[in-house]
Amino acid sequence: MNRKILSSGNLQIQRFFNLDTRAYEEGALSSKVKELLGLVASLVLRCDDCITYHVIRCVEEGVSDAEFFEAFNVGLVVGGSITIPHLRRAVQRLEECRTLNKRHLSRRRHDKE
Amino acid sequence: MNRKILSSGNLQIQRFFNLDTRAYEEGALSSKVKELLGLVASLVLRCDDCITYHVIRCVEEGVSDAEFFEAFNVGLVVGGSITIPHLRRAVQRLEECRTLNKRHLSRRRHDKE
Amino acid sequence: MNRKILSSGNLQIQRFFNLDTRAYEEGALSSKVKELLGLVASLVLRCDDCITYHVIRCVEEGVSDAEFFEAFNVGLVVGGSITIPHLRRAVQRLEECRTLNKRHLSRRRHDKE
Amino acid sequence: MNRKILSSGNLQIQRFFNLDTRAYEEGALSSKVKELLGLVASLVLRCDDCITYHVIRCVEEGVSDAEFFEAFNVGLVVGGSITIPHLRRAVQRLEECRTLNKRHLSRRRHDKE
Amino acid sequence: MNRKILSSGNLQIQRFFNLDTRAYEEGALSSKVKELLGLVASLVLRCDDCITYHVIRCVEEGVSDAEFFEAFNVGLVVGGSITIPHLRRAVQRLEECRTLNKRHLSRRRHDKE
Amino acid sequence: MNRKILSSGNLQIQRFFNLDTRAYEEGALSSKVKELLGLVASLVLRCDDCITYHVIRCVEEGVSDAEFFEAFNVGLVVGGSITIPHLRRAVQRLEECRTLNKRHLSRRRHDKE
Repeated sequence: MNRKILSSGNLQIQRFFNLDTRAYEEGALSSKVKELLGLVASLVLRCDDCITYHVIRCVEEGVSDAEFFEAFNVGLVVGGSITIPHLRRAVQRLEECRTLNKRHLSRRRHDKE
Repeated sequence: MNRKILSSGNLQIQRFFNLDTRAYEEGALSSKVKELLGLVASLVLRCDDCITYHVIRCVEEGVSDAEFFEAFNVGLVVGGSITIPHLRRAVQRLEECRTLNKRHLSRRRHDKE
Repeated sequence: MNRKILSSGNLQIQRFFNLDTRAYEEGALSSKVKELLGLVASLVLRCDDCITYHVIRCVEEGVSDAEFFEAFNVGLVVGGSITIPHLRRAVQRLEECRTLNKRHLSRRRHDKE
Repeated sequence: MNRKILSSGNLQIQRFFNLDTRAYEEGALSSKVKELLGLVASLVLRCDDCITYHVIRCVEEGVSDAEFFEAFNVGLVVGGSITIPHLRRAVQRLEECRTLNKRHLSRRRHDKE
Repeated sequence: MNRKILSSGNLQIQRFFNLDTRAYEEGALSSKVKELLGLVASLVLRCDDCITYHVIRCVEEGVSDAEFFEAFNVGLVVGGSITIPHLRRAVQRLEECRTLNKRHLSRRRHDKE
Repeated sequence: MNRKILSSGNLQIQRFFNLDTRAYEEGALSSKVKELLGLVASLVLRCDDCITYHVIRCVEEGVSDAEFFEAFNVGLVVGGSITIPHLRRAVQRLEECRTLNKRHLSRRRHDKE
């Protein structure tokens, strides 16, 4: 669907998408911290698709479970109980990522043996 | 005013305030990162008082100007141009903190000489 | 999923969930009024899961249809037409609750005869 | 300013203002409960002017301090710490109302003696 | 579901629905412009059902693709990247409308021949 | 303050500001319609600074009072009574613009005579 939006010929929307991507690149702050910022911003604004995206990216950046739950807690305290349904789904996404990674790792270990 | 709220006898509000304070304590994530999370969450939710509080706390935690502006940029991209008036005031607060700190440092240097 | 969140070992999230539960307990205001407060807050913040939860709890607290629609109307006027899709789903949930209760009552009546 | 809006000749805005007024009239739910609904909705949506209006109306409807703080607590838990600056100002408004009422009562008592 | 809400007997909700319909009627501003206003308002408030409704209405009012994407761009810039998932679904709805219209037109052309 | 933000050296924030400016330029939709879109988006998101900016720009683009109030009405119906304090301030800004313009015009007429 992004492809369709980008092929619409609207140059400014394309530039916005570009700015969006670059906002999370390594800089004075690490990509890991920036993805955590994106995650908590998405949680308090209550956007499931955005939360899912940043959970995946945080897992890729090596965020630990303890770090995830402390970030979730900041989002929960700032945003209140209205964020709880989104928090639940975030935890579910995180668990799915962890399960996929475990399978992936055990398969790679198996392949080496 | 917090004192008045806390003296209201409503134990649950007191507990909420306690949770709010503790959410930013050093843990798996550093206080610095947590204050940045609080700052960006406050920016996308557009609350000037909360932004001011987290700008001050971030300055105390040693956040550099480059780090501030990268965090502001994440907030701006996620939250859109509607956050710009709050971003302006955030930059103004940051500048006031930096000026106060410089005066404080130059006074301390002067006292030592 | 709550169980998973609660078993995450993050004590502060557990405490938040506890505060969330206790906010609706009978006190100076009745549970009924507090659930109505939660319902309207959920409607203006447009969270379907939260609305469903409070509709069920309001039914349990004996809120009548006339009371429901007056509360919905406050939410609609405060929150505007953007709440209408959520209002529609709220009315659907309410109807499902009423239907379930009728079946339950007619079964109990049948059992007694 | 309402007068200016109403004299704009836009009939639909006038009708909206009328619906807004009538939403809080005594009905299946009391005006007191409806004003509390308006107060909590305004708190979670973080509108100081609306909060001030409903605090004044709640005082007129005889809402006690304990009732106020339980309603505030529901708003705080649902809406999170981002509502705290608004909660502070709400408590300040409440205190001003109570002080004015005390003065008014003591003056009336004085006039009678 | 609207029918159920309207048959609830709550006159004020019925009046609100009426105001909602009339807000987009031809006046000093054309229906086309008003539907675009509704579309962008729905995008920045991130309500998929409302976006779908206004996309359909805008198609009926003859909004071109270039006009749609410029309106989407205003919504994206004002509301930020948090609107992107909704923008994606809006573009999908638009495409579905265009496909349906093309089929409809080619069928009508076929019938005439 | 924009100058300070732009001199921060954060290139991406500068690019965002550029996108923000260009979103309202004449295109498939006129600047007038785009400023109305910005106005209603700002009203439903309840940002006074943004509303003021777009009211001024709409006046410059020749938006009539009747057009303003129809746009305000769309914002009011979509966003609900929580937008009323912002609507009031928007009307006040509009009136100030009209008064300034009248003075300006009468001065220019006077200069010519």
